[in-house]
Amino acid sequence: MSTPSPLLAAVDLGSNSFRLIIGRVEETSAGTQIYQVDALREPVRLAAGLNGEKYLDHPSQQRGWDVLKRFGERLRGFHPDQVRAVATNTLRVAKNAQDFLGEAQRALGFPIEVIAGREEARLIYAGAAHSVPTCSGNRLVVDIGGGSTEFIIGQDYEPLIMESLYIGCVSHSRQFFPSGNVDEYAMKQAELAARREIQIIAAAYRDAGWSQAIGSSGTARALAELLEANGFNDGGVHGLTRGGLERLKRALVKAENTNRLKLAGLKQDRIPVLPGGLSIMLSVFNELEVDHMETTDAALRLGVMYDLLGRTQHQDMRAVTVEQFVRRYGVDRAQAERVGRLAISLYRQLPLKAADDAHGAQGADEGREEGEALLNWASSLHEMGLSISHSAYHKHSAYIGSNADMPGFSRPDQARLAELLLGHVGKLGKLASQAQQVDWQLLFCLRLAVLFCRRRTDALPDSIEVERLGDGFQVSVPRQWIDANPLTDYSLQREAQEWEKIGMRYKVVYA
Amino acid sequence: MSTPSPLLAAVDLGSNSFRLIIGRVEETSAGTQIYQVDALREPVRLAAGLNGEKYLDHPSQQRGWDVLKRFGERLRGFHPDQVRAVATNTLRVAKNAQDFLGEAQRALGFPIEVIAGREEARLIYAGAAHSVPTCSGNRLVVDIGGGSTEFIIGQDYEPLIMESLYIGCVSHSRQFFPSGNVDEYAMKQAELAARREIQIIAAAYRDAGWSQAIGSSGTARALAELLEANGFNDGGVHGLTRGGLERLKRALVKAENTNRLKLAGLKQDRIPVLPGGLSIMLSVFNELEVDHMETTDAALRLGVMYDLLGRTQHQDMRAVTVEQFVRRYGVDRAQAERVGRLAISLYRQLPLKAADDAHGAQGADEGREEGEALLNWASSLHEMGLSISHSAYHKHSAYIGSNADMPGFSRPDQARLAELLLGHVGKLGKLASQAQQVDWQLLFCLRLAVLFCRRRTDALPDSIEVERLGDGFQVSVPRQWIDANPLTDYSLQREAQEWEKIGMRYKVVYA
Repeated sequence: MSTPSPLLAAVDLGSNSFRLIIGRVEETSAGTQIYQVDALREPVRLAAGLNGEKYLDHPSQQRGWDVLKRFGERLRGFHPDQVRAVATNTLRVAKNAQDFLGEAQRALGFPIEVIAGREEARLIYAGAAHSVPTCSGNRLVVDIGGGSTEFIIGQDYEPLIMESLYIGCVSHSRQFFPSGNVDEYAMKQAELAARREIQIIAAAYRDAGWSQAIGSSGTARALAELLEANGFNDGGVHGLTRGGLERLKRALVKAENTNRLKLAGLKQDRIPVLPGGLSIMLSVFNELEVDHMETTDAALRLGVMYDLLGRTQHQDMRAVTVEQFVRRYGVDRAQAERVGRLAISLYRQLPLKAADDAHGAQGADEGREEGEALLNWASSLHEMGLSISHSAYHKHSAYIGSNADMPGFSRPDQARLAELLLGHVGKLGKLASQAQQVDWQLLFCLRLAVLFCRRRTDALPDSIEVERLGDGFQVSVPRQWIDANPLTDYSLQREAQEWEKIGMRYKVVYA
Repeated sequence: MSTPSPLLAAVDLGSNSFRLIIGRVEETSAGTQIYQVDALREPVRLAAGLNGEKYLDHPSQQRGWDVLKRFGERLRGFHPDQVRAVATNTLRVAKNAQDFLGEAQRALGFPIEVIAGREEARLIYAGAAHSVPTCSGNRLVVDIGGGSTEFIIGQDYEPLIMESLYIGCVSHSRQFFPSGNVDEYAMKQAELAARREIQIIAAAYRDAGWSQAIGSSGTARALAELLEANGFNDGGVHGLTRGGLERLKRALVKAENTNRLKLAGLKQDRIPVLPGGLSIMLSVFNELEVDHMETTDAALRLGVMYDLLGRTQHQDMRAVTVEQFVRRYGVDRAQAERVGRLAISLYRQLPLKAADDAHGAQGADEGREEGEALLNWASSLHEMGLSISHSAYHKHSAYIGSNADMPGFSRPDQARLAELLLGHVGKLGKLASQAQQVDWQLLFCLRLAVLFCRRRTDALPDSIEVERLGDGFQVSVPRQWIDANPLTDYSLQREAQEWEKIGMRYKVVYA
């Protein structure tokens, strides 16, 4: 029997929902990661039970206790060192919080900490930083909760500025849209109220600046799902855009009441908090001048777990993820490295695409680095699917690449990687006929490297020269080598036909 | 770096195609298996180059040498102990075989053995026995090659009777359908010629008897794909049926020429050998009185590799496969065993379905055993998908279960297993609305076991009693235990709702 990996659990008594996640700690030479193995989520809406005098009413407390009892059953047998339960804004402000907490801790079987807004912000940042790609500049993380919203600017794994404001999707929805009625006036009032709060911190945040904005809460995730499912974002981009949020607002106003809203991807339990959450998000975009925001889920809970682990990461999480996948799927490392080396050396012979050149010198370097990183990851992972079956293994690699939790990867990165995994062998027709743009240059380098490395030895020709032609590529190989390697010759001819089928040139030259 | 597993290669110079497969040896406590990691296949149609005096013409020899040179490149660096190349009927009968083989061995870089028909039969049986489920009685394996057809009856991994007849899909197609023209008369002549050969061995084979018939060659696989893709089999069964083959014959006669045949799943390179292969298969069904045949691929090549390994298996290959998947996907064994024990104990409380009862006492026992085996495998594998992602992990488990090479599993078994993997948690609606029949009783037991074991400890109630109701199930649990386990209580209520949504009763009783 294999030794079970250590488990950790985080409980988050949020103002909107209570959540429990259980994660398994995975360690490799490249770093440590936590993989979720179980999750429970209950929409308690504690903030909705807070009366005018800031007392929690009995029904909301009872809902909370019932849920915590169920969580407690799941956590029975866990050592206190493995569990951390945190409560956020509603229990920060409720005057009878202590009464609630006594019974709540008995129900859960573990102590519950009411954490301050800045501690919440610190944990949120830690969780977000572990689940999105590293970026060269600052990162803005905005977490719209049920009763408060946290704003953090940080770099890598270090938070630099942290603020917590008393605006949240539950409290805002109750205040401005009490029976779910939405009109222009109410939306405007809700936005103004939120902007008044955000104004206080806006100047300092804009001065610090950021190159990446991330929405880290259930609200951000739910809004992004709505924008994507209904095609509200311009150009079909992922995440949140200002235009997309405005379109959603119009749809909401037109429906007049949240209950009459008919949209793809709308989840029943998000409906009551939708107008409040949307108005706050719009205010963030307008007041901080954000144009685009990626989203990530579970930031607070993930931060709690990394904090429990007592280790912060200083590596690029993507490298850690790729290393763990190599191990998990028993990838032939020597082959992965061989293919990666060759693919990158081919890529370096090609000019950057015109679109990248337009960014100027720095943009070009970044485009180059990004391309090499993608080739490197794709080479490491292209054979993952062999663990399922040799037949159509590239499809299985792409399935894993599309569906797996890949901490550190943004969704667009993960989609580009999955596309390379799918296209690294086999027919090109399907890729060519799909809507999204394919990076043919990366695919060309990867396919050629895989083709030359099929024997899984380092016996490669002394030189493989590649060039961009206007409408395709050229490959030059020494004639002497090719004469001694008829399988590669044959494969090159078939590769050329494959590219010609999708209307591109592919010239093979033996010199 | 992990130690690479040993690789083995088998080359098969068949009368229709030449093939190379490379396999990785995987050993576990439960046994040894070979997983394919690379494959090359070239339709050389050597038998078509055999002239009236049984000399191979030059073009066919040249095609063969060219292909072997390409295979040789792939095998460079392999030690002779890792490779076995065998040639079958066409090279057994060609008078200039030695001339061909000298050049062929230089091209491949490894010795090539022309094996006798009985040795071929022995290897085919070994390969087939390692890739289909064990069965209690004898097993008939029929391998229609390009120039000969092997008939083997065996039990478990031991061949008992072996014959090789000089009828094959290439030679038969050339003789009776020389330019692809097909009519009633030619079909009849082709069948009679094949039956005359089979008659010689039919009595001995029918006397020995079998409980499972398997078609193990490319011909059998291609025919099965045609029957399945065009809905030719009665009741949508898998594999080959007499009715299905007759329908295919009618379609072929109606088309008048193989080139005018328009059928789903028809592969270009199988067209020239289709009428010959079909007429031989029909003769096998008629002469040996076969009604249904499963198919498996790669039997000869797989047999060559197991023979190279020098080990024959005496376990049920399905257990070996499941054990390897548990290891490969890092399944929590303790949890798998816990769920399996509970699921089977629940299943034993339920009556067999009426359909099974009809088989009489013995049939009922077999149905029971089969159900327990399925529950056991599904319990072992239900969490495989966690290796991809916690979110929707049951779908990932089902994806792996549907797409993986699972030596020992028949396709229908694998499909039933994948259905249990998909349905073991979550919504039942999709399963209920699909065409194929779902084994609700097995699913009920598995889901309930997973529900009770969610805490991953052995803290279960003293008794969980289940009963079949006319239109559903009843679950009884001690009230005292349920009061102390509110998550399970809550989950049971939701489980009941899930079953009620698909129109079944689900009664939860606290006693």
